[in-house]
Amino acid sequence: MNTEKQGKESPDKIGRYGFLSEPFRCDFTGCLSMSSLGNHLLNAADFHSHDRGFGLQRLQAENKTWVLSRLVMEMTKMPAAYSDFFVETWVESAMRYFTHRNFKVEDVNSGVCGYGRSVWAMIDTDSRQPVNLFEVRDGALMDYVCPEVACPIDIPSRVKMGSQSDRIATIVASYGDIDVNGHVNSVKYIEHVLNLFPVDYYKTFALRRIEMVYCAESYAGNYLHFYREQTGEHEFRVRITREEASKEGQETEVCRSLLQFCVR
Amino acid sequence: MNTEKQGKESPDKIGRYGFLSEPFRCDFTGCLSMSSLGNHLLNAADFHSHDRGFGLQRLQAENKTWVLSRLVMEMTKMPAAYSDFFVETWVESAMRYFTHRNFKVEDVNSGVCGYGRSVWAMIDTDSRQPVNLFEVRDGALMDYVCPEVACPIDIPSRVKMGSQSDRIATIVASYGDIDVNGHVNSVKYIEHVLNLFPVDYYKTFALRRIEMVYCAESYAGNYLHFYREQTGEHEFRVRITREEASKEGQETEVCRSLLQFCVR
Repeated sequence: MNTEKQGKESPDKIGRYGFLSEPFRCDFTGCLSMSSLGNHLLNAADFHSHDRGFGLQRLQAENKTWVLSRLVMEMTKMPAAYSDFFVETWVESAMRYFTHRNFKVEDVNSGVCGYGRSVWAMIDTDSRQPVNLFEVRDGALMDYVCPEVACPIDIPSRVKMGSQSDRIATIVASYGDIDVNGHVNSVKYIEHVLNLFPVDYYKTFALRRIEMVYCAESYAGNYLHFYREQTGEHEFRVRITREEASKEGQETEVCRSLLQFCVR
Repeated sequence: MNTEKQGKESPDKIGRYGFLSEPFRCDFTGCLSMSSLGNHLLNAADFHSHDRGFGLQRLQAENKTWVLSRLVMEMTKMPAAYSDFFVETWVESAMRYFTHRNFKVEDVNSGVCGYGRSVWAMIDTDSRQPVNLFEVRDGALMDYVCPEVACPIDIPSRVKMGSQSDRIATIVASYGDIDVNGHVNSVKYIEHVLNLFPVDYYKTFALRRIEMVYCAESYAGNYLHFYREQTGEHEFRVRITREEASKEGQETEVCRSLLQFCVR
C-alpha cells in the first residue's frame, strides 16, 4: 500500500494527522497504550470530519452528534515513547444510517504500526433518533467516501458472547469517566477492559487486536459490571453492563469487547 | 505579566509549548480536566528539560531520572474543548537536591488560565539515591534558573492531615495506572483523587487549586486506600496509602492532596 500515491489520488479524502507518543501516556513497556491510541484515532476522526464540515463542534450547534458504534484496532507494534507518528483516516463507505471510517497508524521511524476500523451513526441529540446521512447537507458526506484505499484488517465482528462469562469486576462510573456528552467516554471503556488483565499478563502477551461494540450509554453513578470469558488460547471477550443504583438487579448491556493477544 | 517581553529577556530559559484542549480529554463541563492539564504540564516540563539536555530520555541512558515531589495547579479557568493553549515553564530555583519548576497556562482566546508549581528531585535509578544536581554536567542546570519570572500563586504547602480522615475508597493499582517507570503515574493519582467527588459536586463547584505531595511509589497490584477529610467550606485533603497484598494491614503513605473548590 503506497499512501503517498493514494494521498495524491484522493487528496481531499484522506486526512493525515501527526501526534507524539507522549511518555506519560505510554504503558510500562514504554509504548503507547491501546486506550491512548484509541483517543488519538477519535481525535483524527474528529479533525477529518471537522475539516469537511461534519465535525462534532459544528454538529453540536445543529443538535446532532456522531455516535461511535464499533471500533477495532489491530496493531503489530505500538509507537514508542517520544516517537512522532501519524494517523491517516478516511471514510470507506456511507450508508443511510452508518459510515465506516478506517485508520492507518504509521510511526515516523518504524513504518506502519497497524490499522483501525470504526462504524459511526449520527443522531439527533433532542430526539436521540438516528439521522439519515444522505439528508445532511444534501448528502455532501458522499463526496469524501473513499472505498479505493485498502484497510488490510478484518472488519468488526459482532463479538457474540457465550453463556460462560464470569462477572470479574464492578466499578462505579465516576467523574473522570464522563465526557462532554454526559456519558461514559468510549475510550474509558477500553481503559477499564484493559485493567481486567494483570500487569504480569502484559509482560508475556501483547494486545494485538481489540474490538469494541458500543450498544448503549452509561452515566455517572452507574455500576459497571465486567463479565469475561476466554474464547481462544489468547482470546477473551468482555461484556460490560450498567446497573442504576435506583434499579438494583436490572442490568443493561452497554458494551462488548474482543481482545486478541500474542506472545511478545 | 508580559510573557512576550520576558520571553525575549530570557529567551532560552522559558519554554513555551502549544497544546490542543482535546475534546475527548475534557470533562462533562466541556473544558479540559485537571488531570489532563497535569499531563500537559509534565510533558511541557519534559520538553523543556529535553531541549536543555536534562530530559528523561537522556537521563535514562545515564541511569538517572527525575522524580516529581510536589505539583500544584491553580486555575481560574480551564481551556475549553478545541482551544489552543500554551504552557510556559521555567526553573525558578535549583538547590542541591531539588529544583522548583513553574508553569503558566494561557489560552489563545481567553488569556491566562492559571499557574502551576512543581518540585523535582533527580535520583540514580540503580541506587534509588538522590543525585546532587550541582554535580550533573558541572552544574549546567544553573544556566537555566530563572528566578525573575513571577508565578503569582502560593507555594506548595505540606498538606498536613488531621486525624479525622475517613477511608472512603480502595482500588487496586492496575495496568492503566502503571507508567514506563513501573510505578503508578503521578497524574493517575490526580485522576483517582478527582473521582472521589461525585459528578453532581462538580456541577456546583469548580476545582480551583490542587496540591499533590508525592511521598513514595506504588506498584501494580497494590491496594490504594483513599482517606479524605474536609478542612474548609470548600477544601478537602486526601491521603493515599498503599498496601501490598502479601503484607496485609501494613499501609505506606504514597501521596497527599489538597483540593480547593469554588462555586461555579
